[in-house]
Amino acid sequence: MSLTVEVGFTELALRHRWTISRATLTSKRVAIVRLSWNGLAGWGEGAPISRFGETADGVPAAVAGMAPLLGDDPRRYRAILDRLFREVPGAYGAKAALDMALHDLAAKALGAPLYRVLGLDPAAMAPTSFSIGIDEPDKVAAKVREAPAFATYKIKLGTPRDREIVDAVRSATDRPLRVDANEAWKDRDEALAKIRWLAERGVELVEQPMPADDVEGARWLCARSPLPIIADEAVQLAADVPRLAGAYHGLNLKLQKCGGIAEALRVIEVARACGLKTMLGCMIESGLGIAAAAHIAPLVDWVDLDGNLLLAADPFPGHPVEGGVLRLRDEPGLGVAPAGDLALRLEPTS
Amino acid sequence: MSLTVEVGFTELALRHRWTISRATLTSKRVAIVRLSWNGLAGWGEGAPISRFGETADGVPAAVAGMAPLLGDDPRRYRAILDRLFREVPGAYGAKAALDMALHDLAAKALGAPLYRVLGLDPAAMAPTSFSIGIDEPDKVAAKVREAPAFATYKIKLGTPRDREIVDAVRSATDRPLRVDANEAWKDRDEALAKIRWLAERGVELVEQPMPADDVEGARWLCARSPLPIIADEAVQLAADVPRLAGAYHGLNLKLQKCGGIAEALRVIEVARACGLKTMLGCMIESGLGIAAAAHIAPLVDWVDLDGNLLLAADPFPGHPVEGGVLRLRDEPGLGVAPAGDLALRLEPTS
Repeated sequence: MSLTVEVGFTELALRHRWTISRATLTSKRVAIVRLSWNGLAGWGEGAPISRFGETADGVPAAVAGMAPLLGDDPRRYRAILDRLFREVPGAYGAKAALDMALHDLAAKALGAPLYRVLGLDPAAMAPTSFSIGIDEPDKVAAKVREAPAFATYKIKLGTPRDREIVDAVRSATDRPLRVDANEAWKDRDEALAKIRWLAERGVELVEQPMPADDVEGARWLCARSPLPIIADEAVQLAADVPRLAGAYHGLNLKLQKCGGIAEALRVIEVARACGLKTMLGCMIESGLGIAAAAHIAPLVDWVDLDGNLLLAADPFPGHPVEGGVLRLRDEPGLGVAPAGDLALRLEPTS
Repeated sequence: MSLTVEVGFTELALRHRWTISRATLTSKRVAIVRLSWNGLAGWGEGAPISRFGETADGVPAAVAGMAPLLGDDPRRYRAILDRLFREVPGAYGAKAALDMALHDLAAKALGAPLYRVLGLDPAAMAPTSFSIGIDEPDKVAAKVREAPAFATYKIKLGTPRDREIVDAVRSATDRPLRVDANEAWKDRDEALAKIRWLAERGVELVEQPMPADDVEGARWLCARSPLPIIADEAVQLAADVPRLAGAYHGLNLKLQKCGGIAEALRVIEVARACGLKTMLGCMIESGLGIAAAAHIAPLVDWVDLDGNLLLAADPFPGHPVEGGVLRLRDEPGLGVAPAGDLALRLEPTS
């Protein structure tokens, strides 16, 4: 039985214009991979992170380059992925797409949902937060009012209007908030003052307050902050984790950042061993990428898997959010399939 | 469907009297656990390590204490084991037995060998070494001559006759040797001199040359040794690993030491992230405990899984060693079952 690799693109239209501290989007192009083997299909999504120098346009060539390393038995998914990580540098978006498709296929070959193959309990998953992009304060508040009822909201900050935005959100909800500054606060004292102010306003954690390369600044802040400080841009792979101990309280891992489920499990294990908490986040991506993350979400302390909820339409509908919690359906593999009306042109890699 | 837990003992008779630097054995008592669920049986072995203050006699009470935490769905094996590790201190031999039985049962419920559930390639396993206990030099050499053809032998040292023993072994084989001193060398300079001498005699690594609590001594030796220095008694759990970076080149993990497969996978991931090599070792245990380790052995650099080969008869025969390499059979779960003539009295825990 041979393994066939196909790759293509789909365009994700956003419900709202999306702004964070470094970019504004109205739609996002992602790459989709399909692996076919023994009558089964495995699906994966590459939604690379521009901050790490990758684009969706680069995914097909990277996937084609890795295809000859996949072998002909996807049930050896972990051995295959170990080899990809050993032999191929970079290309984490393409690796994430292949990793998801391999996990989907291997779990389908076992006839079980991936969470069951991994031995996890999907009922043990923490509620997910719902993210609100940067906007005029009154528009941010309106988005919170209009958003579905989530246990917690994640607010993107990083402009001179941070306090106005938080005050406006607080007028719209009294639920716990998470704050993501995306490296925007450049000064330690300013960062600490903002965090102290946020701690009095029901904020439960602050993500990447200062630039990722300012490890000493992070260490200074970690020792003084009344709120947990979470690394995002400062951490990519499991090997990055040990040096974060003492500089952050936790880290935000993302399949698109680290290259998929196999490396994400490594990040989680190393974080635990180093005494760091874990958040599982996402990019703007379809229900496919979100499903892949959701299957390992029972392992983390904080879940932030709302990327597909920001879309006008989800090309890979699957697991619903009920009462703010992702409910994994009991289907084999990742449990999602392309929507019937999805115009997806996939090309074989060879 | 409820989960039934039974536990009992079996006595492992050794082919030869077995001596290491701290003990001599002619037979060894181990605990056996059987989990029954939905018409399937999962088997596990507890062969606790006296060095860590545990005995086989303590396993049944520890298993009975943990039984109420297992729940009624062993397919959630990883979630269950995370809970055991969070809520119950110590009892690593009992945890290892329950961990093996849960993995056996979960893989049987998926109808696949455990290595397939984990996505590994059993053909990628390194050859195992064969261990030779401490004895008169001529007897050690005779044991090597009489031993099956292995790619490498592991010699236990730690007496004033170390050099005589190595010379005698070298008269019997020119294959690579591994040396395990079990903490017996108390002086840094003596240890370094011995290691330099061993490096000239085809030894490929040295395990735990000095006492486990002498981390500074290990760091001094690690910087100077011409051979890789491997931690054994100095490491038990994944959380112990980060502090070993720079003090050892690698570590020897054992299911009986860390509490089973789930924690062993964590130890391997953290070791890799910290730049440490890994060896997967064992105690004197039956083919059951060896099988459990063998399923994850494709992940490690050095395999040392010969505990059942030292027995007069193996109560859980299973995977053969061919040409020095463990060959995993394609049976569901761990792939071993009790020998037909095994007189095993198991008692329910409640």
